[in-house]
Amino acid sequence: MAVKSDIEIAQEAKLLHIREVAAKLGIEEDDLEYYGKYKAKLSEEYIKKVQSGKRGKLVLVTAINPTPAGEGKTTTSVGLGDALNRLGHKTVIALREPSLGPCFGIKGGAAGGGYAQVVPMEDINLHFTGDFHAITSANNLLAAIIDNHIQQGNELGIDTRQIIWKRAVDMNDRALRNIVVGLGAKADGVPREDHFVITVASEIMAILCLADDMDDLKKRLSRIIVAYTRDGEPVTAGQLQAVGAMAALLKDAIKPNLVQTLEHNPVIIHGGPFANIAHGCNSVRATKTALGLSDITVTEAGFGADLGAEKFLDIKCRMAGLKPDAVVLVATIRALKYNGGVDKKNLGEENLDALKKGIVNLEKHIENIQKYGVPVVVTLNSFLTDTQAETEFVRKFCEERDCRFALSEVWAKGGEGGEALAKEVINTLENKPSNFAPIYPDDMSLKDKITTVAKEIYGADGVQFSGPASRQLAKIEEMGFGNLPVCMAKTQYSLSDDPNLLGRPKDYMIQVREAYVSAGAGFVVALTGAIVTMPGLPKHPAAYDIDVNDEGKITGLF
Amino acid sequence: MAVKSDIEIAQEAKLLHIREVAAKLGIEEDDLEYYGKYKAKLSEEYIKKVQSGKRGKLVLVTAINPTPAGEGKTTTSVGLGDALNRLGHKTVIALREPSLGPCFGIKGGAAGGGYAQVVPMEDINLHFTGDFHAITSANNLLAAIIDNHIQQGNELGIDTRQIIWKRAVDMNDRALRNIVVGLGAKADGVPREDHFVITVASEIMAILCLADDMDDLKKRLSRIIVAYTRDGEPVTAGQLQAVGAMAALLKDAIKPNLVQTLEHNPVIIHGGPFANIAHGCNSVRATKTALGLSDITVTEAGFGADLGAEKFLDIKCRMAGLKPDAVVLVATIRALKYNGGVDKKNLGEENLDALKKGIVNLEKHIENIQKYGVPVVVTLNSFLTDTQAETEFVRKFCEERDCRFALSEVWAKGGEGGEALAKEVINTLENKPSNFAPIYPDDMSLKDKITTVAKEIYGADGVQFSGPASRQLAKIEEMGFGNLPVCMAKTQYSLSDDPNLLGRPKDYMIQVREAYVSAGAGFVVALTGAIVTMPGLPKHPAAYDIDVNDEGKITGLF
Repeated sequence: MAVKSDIEIAQEAKLLHIREVAAKLGIEEDDLEYYGKYKAKLSEEYIKKVQSGKRGKLVLVTAINPTPAGEGKTTTSVGLGDALNRLGHKTVIALREPSLGPCFGIKGGAAGGGYAQVVPMEDINLHFTGDFHAITSANNLLAAIIDNHIQQGNELGIDTRQIIWKRAVDMNDRALRNIVVGLGAKADGVPREDHFVITVASEIMAILCLADDMDDLKKRLSRIIVAYTRDGEPVTAGQLQAVGAMAALLKDAIKPNLVQTLEHNPVIIHGGPFANIAHGCNSVRATKTALGLSDITVTEAGFGADLGAEKFLDIKCRMAGLKPDAVVLVATIRALKYNGGVDKKNLGEENLDALKKGIVNLEKHIENIQKYGVPVVVTLNSFLTDTQAETEFVRKFCEERDCRFALSEVWAKGGEGGEALAKEVINTLENKPSNFAPIYPDDMSLKDKITTVAKEIYGADGVQFSGPASRQLAKIEEMGFGNLPVCMAKTQYSLSDDPNLLGRPKDYMIQVREAYVSAGAGFVVALTGAIVTMPGLPKHPAAYDIDVNDEGKITGLF
Repeated sequence: MAVKSDIEIAQEAKLLHIREVAAKLGIEEDDLEYYGKYKAKLSEEYIKKVQSGKRGKLVLVTAINPTPAGEGKTTTSVGLGDALNRLGHKTVIALREPSLGPCFGIKGGAAGGGYAQVVPMEDINLHFTGDFHAITSANNLLAAIIDNHIQQGNELGIDTRQIIWKRAVDMNDRALRNIVVGLGAKADGVPREDHFVITVASEIMAILCLADDMDDLKKRLSRIIVAYTRDGEPVTAGQLQAVGAMAALLKDAIKPNLVQTLEHNPVIIHGGPFANIAHGCNSVRATKTALGLSDITVTEAGFGADLGAEKFLDIKCRMAGLKPDAVVLVATIRALKYNGGVDKKNLGEENLDALKKGIVNLEKHIENIQKYGVPVVVTLNSFLTDTQAETEFVRKFCEERDCRFALSEVWAKGGEGGEALAKEVINTLENKPSNFAPIYPDDMSLKDKITTVAKEIYGADGVQFSGPASRQLAKIEEMGFGNLPVCMAKTQYSLSDDPNLLGRPKDYMIQVREAYVSAGAGFVVALTGAIVTMPGLPKHPAAYDIDVNDEGKITGLF
């Protein structure tokens, strides 16, 4: 029998009207703003009401470092949520919105897989409810206002060599990484070097994800530093009078979106910064809304635990006053063997030696999460090629490290395939206390914060700061932002900043080449290695295979 | 008493749920895709069904050349529609979607004014249902695929000096008019000159507005010429395998949107190319849907009749097989006096001499519409400062030219203030036959088509083609596109291509400096004068005054 693709499974599903999904949570029709029959935003009044009530338990799903073998973090989150609901626990899943970049590039969509998906998957992967477009518009309105301010006389004295605000597009478009704008005649602007970032890397994405409400959103937008004067004074979005119009563009985008799993359980999807070049978590408002609506909230953070979980714990939870009760760490036998040096094409063969060698990656992530005081459950997203000896090896390895362990078969079986994992999660929530604390305190110096993450989480010996990075960090502290957390921009493929170092790299230094403050988001970004904030398309982009027929049915999206 | 602003009037209005507006037209809930409570898209099945039935009468609203004094074309369209409904004629209004560019720039929103507005005006003026964002995304996906194709080996042999596809943003951003992309290292693309256009000028906007259905849309996308090879051979979007993914991005955007007037009458808003740099009409699908749903459809085309109406008649009606039954030509006493040389600050004073001098602009537009064989009704959008002598002068002037005439007071009084106009329109529809024919035949040469428009419509003595324009037009004919209509890119402020020549310019030549074929849209664009396809922001952009409060209420949008 041919294996069905994700989109085929999704399109065969019979969806409930979103009104009915909302009703399961006690949300009335009047509190919904529909986007078609299967998507809705929650009204601002309702969000406020829900957030002021009691809160359920918070479970974060994260993973080992991603490999070409695939891990299935979103799939596991969805299947775990379905399983918890099957077992009678009122559960809401809180996820990030996918970006069009990877959707048309190499990675494909991001709404789960197999029988553990969020639907309507095509809509979620394409424009969804327009949140990313609103963010892109707000980002580019600010950019246009900056260049217009300069064109019209530059009253604020912006140094055109020190404009740090970049334009954004939700697309993988490497040709826009480094550009020169303002060419032509006098009426066509002032020539200067500029750059585009992908929308998920925009500070406005981070702001939307961290803001409490419209009032807080506007304050954060106002604090954005867009440029410096020749005297080194920051110029903000507030000074440029851009805040009100940007906020108006974001008035609907700040409202979380409600959709459903294939098993008709509620999912809140909202915000979507990448975890390698941004902070990698869905919005605080979405998570708090989910917590208010459920007994258990299952959420995820991007890429491996070194990026997504670290930022979830050190940035999002710290800022929002959230306390995670458990962390689910997703791995696959295939990915662990890949980490142990097995070539991609031989991952289907049993190989206990490679597994032993590669499991150090999982080991490090377990240790890391335990440093935050949060109990860990490890799950293997199972593949047909996994052998019992391999699975048992991993189970034993985890249990020796005080982690509960369960196989997950949610890709093939949906919620039913996640019941074993759900039981371990419930067992953990009921029996293991969480003593969550961030890995570094607010009042540590920025260099020490970066060094703490590098040593404690990445396993590096230390950090080498470039000359510019050192100067930038000193200036950021001088400006009064030394108490902010740090947001590391680092490759997702390795615990280190070198994408080629698999397993558990040792005896190396993290290279920080640049740093800047995102004063609106409220963190300091440190760029390591060769990380870029605008991806490119591969030789054969996923876009080539996507199509839509005359009835609006989409094919080739994966 | 303080005069209320448009947004204040709009926000005080009690809107009907869009379900109830749809019910007036016999549209059932199942055929609606809601976007919140007050906006909906019509389902593809319903659009197909409606278009196959009987068709009502088609009335186009157009205007004299715009002046800083304001004309109120959309306001008149809305008020006329309300009035026709009041008089018992089942009427649907078909309008264009506003662009974010003018909304944050100098012009403000575009959903009518006073008591003749379409609501919810903030949503319509901001993201609406995301159609423009979808168009922008499709435009920029194609751009990214072009540059990626070159980066990955350039199999099709694209000449980077001859890429005509431009990136798009729905924003006034002059700094993006002329740029260099692909700078940096080998991995960052191939350096080349590039340009951004505002989304309303994208060929994809024109394609969306002219396509019959998804099948036709895909064929048109496929025909887009994005570049030429060194041998001068065209390279199309179809050859770049971009069509399916672009179409997938547009799958919802091709569905017309339903909203309501302040008087709860149905309005279909869909598509929105500018009339100066594109073809200036709402979508064919919207107009045909409106015709199928009503006895009378009131639609409008952008800017003055030299641009919007000419393109409506020569491009849209020609391609879609539409036959307009009447044209309403909107003027104001103030604008006619401005055309007669009166300074903006003195327009409130009676000045019959200036009116006589300026009315030649109206005269020329009346003559032009009559050349198409369509009966004309002239309306004055009344201002408090208009005197009876002035109004009577205009009435007599129109009646002498075989035009019905009526004052319109829709801004102040809504539909009631449009009843006089509505009666003249009905009288015209009942008594004056329309013998519509385009101004030039398909089989005329491109130069002759351009010259026909210049002489017959603009009143020029002829056309001077630049060397490049002549070569481009010859090549376009050689490529087999000689039978397409022409789409003139020209200033809206004058019948001529010089924005400073008011009234009825004579003894001048139109300058065509460049020409290219929009093979997907199905027309040949001729650029005249100094027209730009990317506007800039003014010294004090409208964006500065826009704000939103914690309840999501927007202020300062006009």
